[in-house]
Amino acid sequence: MDKKTFTVAGGGPVGSLLAILLARHGYRVGLYEGRPDSRVTSIYQGRSINIALSDRGWNSLQEIGVSSDAKSNAIPMYHRAVHGVDGELSTLPYGQDGDAIWSVSRGGINEQLLDIADSEANIKTHFEHRLIDVDFDAANAVFRVGGGAETKVEADYLFGADGANSKVRRLAHHLPRFSYSQTYMPQSYLELTIPANSDGSHKLEKNALHIWPRKDFMLIALPNPDGSFTCTLFLDHSGEPSFESLQERSSVEAFFKSNFGDAMELLENPVDVFMAKTATPLFLVQVFPWTFNRKVGLIGDAAHAIVPFYGQGMNCGFEDCAELNRLIRFYDHDWDAIFPAYEARRKPNGDAIAELSKRNFIEMSDLSGDRRFQLQKKIEAKFSKQFPALWTPLYSMVTFSPEVPYSQALRIGDEQNKVMQKIMALPGIEESWDEPFIMEQLFELASKALNN
Amino acid sequence: MDKKTFTVAGGGPVGSLLAILLARHGYRVGLYEGRPDSRVTSIYQGRSINIALSDRGWNSLQEIGVSSDAKSNAIPMYHRAVHGVDGELSTLPYGQDGDAIWSVSRGGINEQLLDIADSEANIKTHFEHRLIDVDFDAANAVFRVGGGAETKVEADYLFGADGANSKVRRLAHHLPRFSYSQTYMPQSYLELTIPANSDGSHKLEKNALHIWPRKDFMLIALPNPDGSFTCTLFLDHSGEPSFESLQERSSVEAFFKSNFGDAMELLENPVDVFMAKTATPLFLVQVFPWTFNRKVGLIGDAAHAIVPFYGQGMNCGFEDCAELNRLIRFYDHDWDAIFPAYEARRKPNGDAIAELSKRNFIEMSDLSGDRRFQLQKKIEAKFSKQFPALWTPLYSMVTFSPEVPYSQALRIGDEQNKVMQKIMALPGIEESWDEPFIMEQLFELASKALNN
Repeated sequence: MDKKTFTVAGGGPVGSLLAILLARHGYRVGLYEGRPDSRVTSIYQGRSINIALSDRGWNSLQEIGVSSDAKSNAIPMYHRAVHGVDGELSTLPYGQDGDAIWSVSRGGINEQLLDIADSEANIKTHFEHRLIDVDFDAANAVFRVGGGAETKVEADYLFGADGANSKVRRLAHHLPRFSYSQTYMPQSYLELTIPANSDGSHKLEKNALHIWPRKDFMLIALPNPDGSFTCTLFLDHSGEPSFESLQERSSVEAFFKSNFGDAMELLENPVDVFMAKTATPLFLVQVFPWTFNRKVGLIGDAAHAIVPFYGQGMNCGFEDCAELNRLIRFYDHDWDAIFPAYEARRKPNGDAIAELSKRNFIEMSDLSGDRRFQLQKKIEAKFSKQFPALWTPLYSMVTFSPEVPYSQALRIGDEQNKVMQKIMALPGIEESWDEPFIMEQLFELASKALNN
Repeated sequence: MDKKTFTVAGGGPVGSLLAILLARHGYRVGLYEGRPDSRVTSIYQGRSINIALSDRGWNSLQEIGVSSDAKSNAIPMYHRAVHGVDGELSTLPYGQDGDAIWSVSRGGINEQLLDIADSEANIKTHFEHRLIDVDFDAANAVFRVGGGAETKVEADYLFGADGANSKVRRLAHHLPRFSYSQTYMPQSYLELTIPANSDGSHKLEKNALHIWPRKDFMLIALPNPDGSFTCTLFLDHSGEPSFESLQERSSVEAFFKSNFGDAMELLENPVDVFMAKTATPLFLVQVFPWTFNRKVGLIGDAAHAIVPFYGQGMNCGFEDCAELNRLIRFYDHDWDAIFPAYEARRKPNGDAIAELSKRNFIEMSDLSGDRRFQLQKKIEAKFSKQFPALWTPLYSMVTFSPEVPYSQALRIGDEQNKVMQKIMALPGIEESWDEPFIMEQLFELASKALNN
């Protein structure tokens, strides 16, 4: 094989992983990142952004041969620890015994992947190279180095792995027939911290994702290896209550006290942080096409910026890489075939996880809320346990069943929901839900709906 | 009332109408258009773009007091003249007797509205002023005059009425929380002409919209007062057949001959035009918000660029103006109330007509196609005639019922469709459709579905 060259714009987790897989296929790769190398200059400034990795992410890393390194610092979370308004704590498992989602440090996994990239002879990494322009016909790119001169980089192919605010994608805006949408969610978010105990242990149960679900808003906390928790408050941008309406120190304090009483004693200066920081808006981006002239492609958040409510963002980006890895083998390095096949196989799944993530805010923020909704979940869980081959709950399909594409999970989930609506419409379901005839009816409906 | 000032960016039909209504409320208006004044320099170069105006458009013009001028050159079209592949001609009325949509020249109506604007003491029109920048806090704008100097224009409020490619909207992109989507349709379009007979008469029936529906593509023709027809070919951008696949002169000729045999003898050099011109892509744009800081607003295509398949583009823009007109009265010139009310009332209707227009391609291009689809229309028409108070067909709601907002028409249309799906699922419907018990069943279903 001739050594074709690739430019990968973006040295985040997805860009690094993409560079590694391309290098291992024998390509020469230039990996370009606009920011400084965090391994040298610590750009994270103590901030620990953590994310959830689950089976899709791990399987993809494994397929490319780098999973063992990444898993060392990850913390398994086996269930949701749900904090009621009154401080009451309840537990909701994520799946069957042993199923877990994993809290990983975004910076940590990124640095591990960059270390691997640096050890590959075929990869040359370049930091502080800010992308200025892309020639979508020739796959050439222009970068500004540091604050100074521009440099032109030629390659046979280019991938934009440059995240939710992708410059490659913004440059593609001017191409003919480029469909684009950016949608802001009603919610914004703010990061808070629960520090470790003085002995380095966790102040809350370590192996859980903590949620304070308050229907229209919520607080969540993910564990870090150093004993701290990174917390995120999701709250409407405007309306009541909202980041906009909570302006006075006293009302912020009252808001925390009445809604997150138990957390307030653990959080590090939540009111100060709330008053000082600007909340970050949540948005999703969908585009088509994902590939241009069989020369340039988008991957990861650059192709599908989604909201974080399903914990699938990085999982989806890693899956993009694994799919590309398979297609390189399948089409034996014929990129005229690989680009369209990649786009055709991944775009529907990107759209599906975008939709699922958007919907999951309700699921998460209402965990201890609406009683009929909770009853529906309970009936579903019981049925799934009795007939696991017929019914895998949507959350499990998305999180623990990498063999089910996101698009298929969405479709099956919608069918399941229609079936459950019929069950929930049965008169007296609140009283009779645990009786055998309910399971029988569900079996009949589910067999009809899901077996074709 | 103090004389507040407005900048209106865009001197097309919607911008001109907006300027007129604002002036008549006592505001001072600067109307700015990037192109030269067509009344002086004839920028249309003999090209006659015509569009369909229907009741929403006329009612809105009437409300603002300018309808009589505009209707003088309009040609009523009472039905669709459907041309089969074999040249067979059939007729499908648009509504009840007398209901018509009107073919008007876009340039003509624009010039009539500009003449009225020029006659208003409160309006100053400026041509060859290209918008460069907008200050969304202060409603100030910068224009480039001709090819030369920039000029800054201050005003109390600013409206972007600058069309589907709105510069005001593109500048708004950088505002926080601006949701945006642009979606390309599979189809592109190309304009063709059927010239007048030598005596100035029309070569095809004058008072009809002519359609050559071929399912995946179609040709349409709208009459002009000078005896010609402006025709539009809608065809996929890529695939088979498509603008991309039809590259050879011989295959273009074969395409026209086999699909538009009867039209080919009337069209002016269709093959030459097809070979020489580049097809124009069709796209739709949806955004939110439509108003910024209670200082700047979007209106017409700038707020909602839609596809032309329902003939509602200009109607919707004029309706935006009429709504604004009502709100100025209702809120007695309080623009802090008018901006949010305008956005809240028009955005759902802009979204609805976008969706309806997208869907209507199938409706139009399949007019002589799918037999079951035609049967469904026939049953619906019969029922609507028997029970007009219970059932107005969707097309009539959109086109002839300005009192029904687009969003309501869409909602009712979806309910109607569900009812019709049940009727079409009745065994033997192909044979029994004309029997009384079908109307009875439809009555029962419709009463239940539509009366709440």
